[in-house]
Amino acid sequence: MRRYFHPDPADVCLPEVLFALSDATRLGIAVALADGAERTAGELGGDIAKSTMTHHLKILREAGLLYVRSEGTRCYNSLRLAELETRFPGLLDQLLGFAVKCGYTSADARR
Amino acid sequence: MRRYFHPDPADVCLPEVLFALSDATRLGIAVALADGAERTAGELGGDIAKSTMTHHLKILREAGLLYVRSEGTRCYNSLRLAELETRFPGLLDQLLGFAVKCGYTSADARR
Repeated sequence: MRRYFHPDPADVCLPEVLFALSDATRLGIAVALADGAERTAGELGGDIAKSTMTHHLKILREAGLLYVRSEGTRCYNSLRLAELETRFPGLLDQLLGFAVKCGYTSADARR
Repeated sequence: MRRYFHPDPADVCLPEVLFALSDATRLGIAVALADGAERTAGELGGDIAKSTMTHHLKILREAGLLYVRSEGTRCYNSLRLAELETRFPGLLDQLLGFAVKCGYTSADARR
């Protein structure tokens, strides 16, 4: 079972969080996961190339936004909502609210 | 007198704003300009190489965060606070508040 690196909440840096969300596809992934549920890369990515999704999910994970849980041969992705709320209260809510208003919905994660 | 391109507020995109602020130096520049005053690149950059500052100021300007006013041979930079507040209410306040808390102060623009 593969183990993934997840930064400690105290080490999550604002510039890295902003960089992780500075892309339409990654904003779409975050919007798709904003309900707190777990989703596989396939569920999130639709027809995006697997390697492209792996790249985007890695950036989100290494910035501290995403938690990846391995179960058998599958990986389940979820947003680290509670930890991000403790680190940057209100930030993710506000950013994802604007993302939805600007039209970066989960469909962007499938382009 | 040089004229600079400034995007229309309606064309300011969330991913570009987040990318512009996804760097310690650019966060420091934004923090330094948060009072609404105009400053020259020299005042903002300190001992940062002029070409590096030009690059950072261009990214902030093209993302819609910065207004550049030419006067004679000098250029004065200011944040487009009112327009950004209309486009993304509360966003810049929140981001710059976290930037200050995380220690990205105007000194970062002088590294």
